Amino acid sequence: MEREIFANISPLDHRYSVGNEELWQRMSDYLSEEAAIRYLAKVEAALAKALAAQGVAPEEAAEEISRAAGEVRPEEVIAEEAKTRHNIRALVNVIQAKVSPQVRPWVHFTATSADIIDSANALRYKEFTRDVLLPQLKELIGTLVEMAQREKDTLQVGRTHGQHAVPITFGYYLAGYVQRLGTSYQRIQEAAENLRGKMAGAVGAYNASSLVVEDPLALEEQVMAELGIKASPFATQVVEAEYMLALMHEYVTCLGILANFADDMRHLQRTEIGEVGEYFAPEQVGSSTMPHKRNPWNYEHVKSLWKTFLPRIMTVYMDQISEHQRDLSNSASSRFLAELAAGCVLAMNRLNQVTKKLRVDAEAMRRNFAASARMIVAEPLYILLASKGHPDAHEAVRVLTLEAEKTGRPVVELAKSKAELEPYLAQLTTEQWKVLEDPAAYTGQAARKTELICNHWISQLNIS
Amino acid sequence: MEREIFANISPLDHRYSVGNEELWQRMSDYLSEEAAIRYLAKVEAALAKALAAQGVAPEEAAEEISRAAGEVRPEEVIAEEAKTRHNIRALVNVIQAKVSPQVRPWVHFTATSADIIDSANALRYKEFTRDVLLPQLKELIGTLVEMAQREKDTLQVGRTHGQHAVPITFGYYLAGYVQRLGTSYQRIQEAAENLRGKMAGAVGAYNASSLVVEDPLALEEQVMAELGIKASPFATQVVEAEYMLALMHEYVTCLGILANFADDMRHLQRTEIGEVGEYFAPEQVGSSTMPHKRNPWNYEHVKSLWKTFLPRIMTVYMDQISEHQRDLSNSASSRFLAELAAGCVLAMNRLNQVTKKLRVDAEAMRRNFAASARMIVAEPLYILLASKGHPDAHEAVRVLTLEAEKTGRPVVELAKSKAELEPYLAQLTTEQWKVLEDPAAYTGQAARKTELICNHWISQLNIS
Amino acid sequence: MEREIFANISPLDHRYSVGNEELWQRMSDYLSEEAAIRYLAKVEAALAKALAAQGVAPEEAAEEISRAAGEVRPEEVIAEEAKTRHNIRALVNVIQAKVSPQVRPWVHFTATSADIIDSANALRYKEFTRDVLLPQLKELIGTLVEMAQREKDTLQVGRTHGQHAVPITFGYYLAGYVQRLGTSYQRIQEAAENLRGKMAGAVGAYNASSLVVEDPLALEEQVMAELGIKASPFATQVVEAEYMLALMHEYVTCLGILANFADDMRHLQRTEIGEVGEYFAPEQVGSSTMPHKRNPWNYEHVKSLWKTFLPRIMTVYMDQISEHQRDLSNSASSRFLAELAAGCVLAMNRLNQVTKKLRVDAEAMRRNFAASARMIVAEPLYILLASKGHPDAHEAVRVLTLEAEKTGRPVVELAKSKAELEPYLAQLTTEQWKVLEDPAAYTGQAARKTELICNHWISQLNIS
Amino acid sequence: MEREIFANISPLDHRYSVGNEELWQRMSDYLSEEAAIRYLAKVEAALAKALAAQGVAPEEAAEEISRAAGEVRPEEVIAEEAKTRHNIRALVNVIQAKVSPQVRPWVHFTATSADIIDSANALRYKEFTRDVLLPQLKELIGTLVEMAQREKDTLQVGRTHGQHAVPITFGYYLAGYVQRLGTSYQRIQEAAENLRGKMAGAVGAYNASSLVVEDPLALEEQVMAELGIKASPFATQVVEAEYMLALMHEYVTCLGILANFADDMRHLQRTEIGEVGEYFAPEQVGSSTMPHKRNPWNYEHVKSLWKTFLPRIMTVYMDQISEHQRDLSNSASSRFLAELAAGCVLAMNRLNQVTKKLRVDAEAMRRNFAASARMIVAEPLYILLASKGHPDAHEAVRVLTLEAEKTGRPVVELAKSKAELEPYLAQLTTEQWKVLEDPAAYTGQAARKTELICNHWISQLNIS
Repeated sequence: MEREIFANISPLDHRYSVGNEELWQRMSDYLSEEAAIRYLAKVEAALAKALAAQGVAPEEAAEEISRAAGEVRPEEVIAEEAKTRHNIRALVNVIQAKVSPQVRPWVHFTATSADIIDSANALRYKEFTRDVLLPQLKELIGTLVEMAQREKDTLQVGRTHGQHAVPITFGYYLAGYVQRLGTSYQRIQEAAENLRGKMAGAVGAYNASSLVVEDPLALEEQVMAELGIKASPFATQVVEAEYMLALMHEYVTCLGILANFADDMRHLQRTEIGEVGEYFAPEQVGSSTMPHKRNPWNYEHVKSLWKTFLPRIMTVYMDQISEHQRDLSNSASSRFLAELAAGCVLAMNRLNQVTKKLRVDAEAMRRNFAASARMIVAEPLYILLASKGHPDAHEAVRVLTLEAEKTGRPVVELAKSKAELEPYLAQLTTEQWKVLEDPAAYTGQAARKTELICNHWISQLNIS
Repeated sequence: MEREIFANISPLDHRYSVGNEELWQRMSDYLSEEAAIRYLAKVEAALAKALAAQGVAPEEAAEEISRAAGEVRPEEVIAEEAKTRHNIRALVNVIQAKVSPQVRPWVHFTATSADIIDSANALRYKEFTRDVLLPQLKELIGTLVEMAQREKDTLQVGRTHGQHAVPITFGYYLAGYVQRLGTSYQRIQEAAENLRGKMAGAVGAYNASSLVVEDPLALEEQVMAELGIKASPFATQVVEAEYMLALMHEYVTCLGILANFADDMRHLQRTEIGEVGEYFAPEQVGSSTMPHKRNPWNYEHVKSLWKTFLPRIMTVYMDQISEHQRDLSNSASSRFLAELAAGCVLAMNRLNQVTKKLRVDAEAMRRNFAASARMIVAEPLYILLASKGHPDAHEAVRVLTLEAEKTGRPVVELAKSKAELEPYLAQLTTEQWKVLEDPAAYTGQAARKTELICNHWISQLNIS
Repeated sequence: MEREIFANISPLDHRYSVGNEELWQRMSDYLSEEAAIRYLAKVEAALAKALAAQGVAPEEAAEEISRAAGEVRPEEVIAEEAKTRHNIRALVNVIQAKVSPQVRPWVHFTATSADIIDSANALRYKEFTRDVLLPQLKELIGTLVEMAQREKDTLQVGRTHGQHAVPITFGYYLAGYVQRLGTSYQRIQEAAENLRGKMAGAVGAYNASSLVVEDPLALEEQVMAELGIKASPFATQVVEAEYMLALMHEYVTCLGILANFADDMRHLQRTEIGEVGEYFAPEQVGSSTMPHKRNPWNYEHVKSLWKTFLPRIMTVYMDQISEHQRDLSNSASSRFLAELAAGCVLAMNRLNQVTKKLRVDAEAMRRNFAASARMIVAEPLYILLASKGHPDAHEAVRVLTLEAEKTGRPVVELAKSKAELEPYLAQLTTEQWKVLEDPAAYTGQAARKTELICNHWISQLNIS
Repeated sequence: MEREIFANISPLDHRYSVGNEELWQRMSDYLSEEAAIRYLAKVEAALAKALAAQGVAPEEAAEEISRAAGEVRPEEVIAEEAKTRHNIRALVNVIQAKVSPQVRPWVHFTATSADIIDSANALRYKEFTRDVLLPQLKELIGTLVEMAQREKDTLQVGRTHGQHAVPITFGYYLAGYVQRLGTSYQRIQEAAENLRGKMAGAVGAYNASSLVVEDPLALEEQVMAELGIKASPFATQVVEAEYMLALMHEYVTCLGILANFADDMRHLQRTEIGEVGEYFAPEQVGSSTMPHKRNPWNYEHVKSLWKTFLPRIMTVYMDQISEHQRDLSNSASSRFLAELAAGCVLAMNRLNQVTKKLRVDAEAMRRNFAASARMIVAEPLYILLASKGHPDAHEAVRVLTLEAEKTGRPVVELAKSKAELEPYLAQLTTEQWKVLEDPAAYTGQAARKTELICNHWISQLNIS
């Protein structure tokens, strides 16, 4: 069944799919309904193999069912579901129709639908995370590592409250995102590998399998081993919500870090600041009415994705509540997790594309810093006075800055003119004077720590 | 550009589109990217007409541009956007290519992109609400009105805290949803009709139009009149977020009412309660492993849609913040409003389908009530004792209920056996004794108010 | 029972109460537990009066109960509740103990707890809105009106995407907030006046009152009339959630507008922009380590309040779901609405305090504008060329801006040097040339519309 | 400064504080403003000690400052802040006033405010979690372990979709919460121990400390070691938001599990189900108008707390965005984390109190199960037929259940009457027949797994 792409309702399936078709296809391979059905069939196959391995079903059942499961086409299942109005029963019927009569009883044997669905989703999101999401994230981290190392000595004014504070380097700033995203990478990976499947039956007590299998827990373990995932330590009809919630929490946490970075990149492109710039193609249009505009629209887009997808974590929290041995009110909602996953990948990908081509204007950074250098010196001056024993250095310098503001004279010059400061200033070393005379040198451990962090994550994530 | 439906990522574009293709198509006509482009072209046409009407552009510009706008195909715009990377400039280029050279300057003349986008969205969501969402809601209200009138005398125990309280009628219960949904209908309608467009230019100050038009506000009014919407009283580059927020708030408020109803219907289908039942087709499967199951899955589905779509209102609130004359961080997010709108319609439609065929088991309702009738009488007994002057009637009856629980004897019988209550009981009228002897008569104004409410809404909404 | 303020857990009850004790006290008069109990007693008094007026209870019951209700002290109720574990029964007991034995039966007669609680809350939030919140909002709007009028001609560059676009005036910018907040004021007022009470008994069907009153709906109307609020058209045990939800939605919508304004004020104080400044006391400290810092901390505070209180609207939406004739899961949550209400008032108050003293640096605004003036001219140039019939004016000017960027020459100067533009430029009027030569004149309807909007709201809200 | 408790605005500081004063006091010791100031002073002391240990400050500075920090009274700081309008500068001034002049320069030396605040919060929430929250949670888990073991063989019908499914035991149900809460306990603990402090100065680059200390990272490590917390691997002015976010995520995840349990307990108390009951004191009132009511109000309360506090996690996610080296918009919001923490503890405590006294009605459980036993047998029958080779057992049994519904005859009896089933039924073992004749035996691994889980967590959490 085909459809014109632009007739779709979700922007994920029209606008944001044609923007990067190759990436979209890679996501669809895990997140679409086709993919979901493929993974369900995989679990039915794994169950058949485990049943045979445990001596419950004959060996041929394992073979036939595995083969049949591999041949299932989504359309068949959808067509059958129109009759049964039950998607897993439909899948089972489709598989059964592909095997010999004597093998049919062993299809889905002892399983409840949720055994198949939850195990399939655990596997599906685990593999999606490993094969699509984490590689995107790693590539972005790699881009940031490279830039951080390159810009580790590029002077930039530090900004707190939007006000010039004291200097850092632009590389140091970037290293912060390497650190946060690196940590996020590891936590996402851990959460994905901790997803759980189950084969514990209709209410989680292995009722059906206990009738026909010696050790139902061993059967469950074997199915999970076939799939390469872990079993839930205690399921009802469904796996406890917390494992998937943990993964989605890590997804949106990562999205929050991306949004923070995107937000900064937007602001650094403000006309008055202009420290970085998105690449602009010669034929590209910034505004339909203002021909001169060059907007930071890609970073704005990432922030918009954050606003779109962050609130969806609320749904996942709400799905923790499922009555007794389960109610179905988490069914539709859990299908929409695919959108959340796709949204996070789109943000990573866009951020990487635009950041790779980011124009860094070190000259503008230096110019902006210079405009405040005379005031910025207030902090090192206060620290140095205090270090020489001035009992009230902060207040003394604060008063100097007010005078500097009023008179326009540099703070250090004013300091030198004050008799009461003279005894302390006299004790400063040459090295310390250097910072007061040239506050651009006041970058502390910025360059050193940039290196430390980059090297740490190059090694942790095997970045080449 | 076509694609297999089940390759889509959003459940809206695969599973929940094939479930009801006719409804989905009706939504796509307003909510898809194709639809969005069609509405954008409509606004360009309206602008051209208004420019001509105001004597700014020649009459032929209005004609040619209107015609060209009507001929725009989404694929052309998408193809052009690949070059310009700006969707409105792409649309303008496509229209310009379809008109004579002397008319080209008047395409999009004085407008900024957001003039077109925001006006198109106001019109689009207004028409979607009027043509798709409200009819669905009205049909559901009609279904409930019919049931409420039919069941207005059907005794049901009232439940507070999940405990039997005092009786109502099932029709009265339903009338509550007629009232809440009727009110919601009117508020949605009002909010949709209050959506705003704009033609105020790049920063909202009519800078461009002021150069070439006598009264730019009149030009804006004329464009809006062409479209049948109102103008924003004060726009920046974009219309103030509050108008669309108000509509989306009304959407999710309605969804909350639907979810409340669905939740109750779930619980009334509990095995122990069994007062209503979803229709079950003979060939339908309830569980892949428990052949006897008949689950309230449609109502569960509606609750799940509520959990899925409610949190998305957070995005709309977050989009109230747009820096200075606007930042673009509401761009992607506002595209996803289409999903929210579709989710609400799906919930309405599903609820209507399943409620129309709802099996009401009046016998079960009566049986459940009967089980508590002996205790339920506690309230009327207390009220009647108090009305005859008993100074502490609530406490007296509360103690009787404890005794009734312990002994299993009916509360009224116990009351009659207490000498201190005798003087008060002696004053009761025959009518009042009737309620104590048959608590099923204790339904107050249930039937009367059911009629009042149903008639009110039949008339308000013109329900036939 | 007294307690050290700084031992409190909620910042509302320690830090943000001592910051403005007078305002806090005014809020406590409506939002505290003491206030809640006072309002509950008011409803009991109104019920007694209505019972007497309807001839159900004797006149002395109305008098005694009203008096007793007026004398209730919170501590009495709390003490009694320790016994009953039911707060309304506790209140009823306390009132009963203050009246003569023959009047005792009429206390709370025919009412269920929720009749009292919901009616009290409707009245309480209505009066809180009218007496505390709206006056704060009006004062802020007044401040903005005054500033907008004063600055209506103050040139400021318009910013979209954080980039210089075309000019507005600062007064025009402020008028936008007058418009949005004025609309919000009216919607809050409307929602507060539309709160509903009820006197429909345990399950909303007037079961108890039907036993003893001719027309229970008339009794309910009379109670509401005594209180000055409207009755719910259909209650279960509780008033439908949507009325209070509508008010809370308007509260947080207003908070979103405040946050947008605060956000802009933060950014306009960026070191590189410096167009406005918060008042800074001579003895005030900006940073504990950087003596020169002057941070926009008040506006940051308002944004932080928005982040704190906006998500709480989710709770109110979730409370739409109450099973059958009600479950109690909205009880604790609705008590916390007091925090949401207080948070909004704090934001209004803080914003007003700091905005009143805001330093506007018109010189900085002009300087920032000037830096881009040569590029800004691109829009009027394109519009004017198009108006004279140039078939591709936008593209022609876009190419000029690229050249301008490369060469540093002004766009207009470049335009004059292009032979192909000559025929169009030759047609420009003197007035039109004026804008090209001095883009500061390109402010469109900014000043005019500022006046229109301010005058509208001065009249609507009776601002003196 | 004292205040009447019931004048407070937050229910946390009035109603829910007097309900359990001892617990509230324990929370206040960590979560109040007084507590916050005490922890800030601790960090100042730790910094002084580390400065001395690193040879930067004299030993007497460490001693005097530690002593002074221990003597700081909140009121002093508040009073000083009224002047400085900066809370950390106020604290520093107060400490400085308590030490000798020559020690004064070393107070707060090289630190920025956020060094103190973030380190104090890390320590404060770590200790609050360890000393208050986790003990509450552990006590609740202990209660559940005890009940689960006691009820491990108590038959209960499993419920999916609110419909009777197949049986479990009530102890097995409880074991599920032992498992989920046990896991949550460990994750909360881990997140609390992973909170981070910092001593990296105004923009995180150790600018100030680099002027006067050999290795600023070593100084930071030493301060953290004094406090017993870890240092942030990369801070700006503030610690990365993700560490605190992780803890708050674990808090609300736990709250979701509690709410799920509370929800089930509500439903099991429905009049028609009646399998458990909250303890009801003899003098307790269930309803102010229905003297017979016994409501599950404590469990309803816990669900209400969940609705109140869950959405607040959105604030914590939103606080991930802080511009450049930080903006202050996370300041007020992070103060309100204290409310979220308190809300979670209140839910744990309430749940434990009421669950400890929970009345379990095994007889009602058995009665409810019995009502469906004839249908429940459908699953084991289908499984057993399939295990003997029936090619379409599910469908065969599904048809039987329809017949059973229509005729009222037991499913097993019908099965025996069908000739086509005879060959399969003939092969069943005595053990297998036992389950068909007495479905109460069909509880699978319920009892065994209950033991496994309880023993695991008794050992993991050292439950006595």
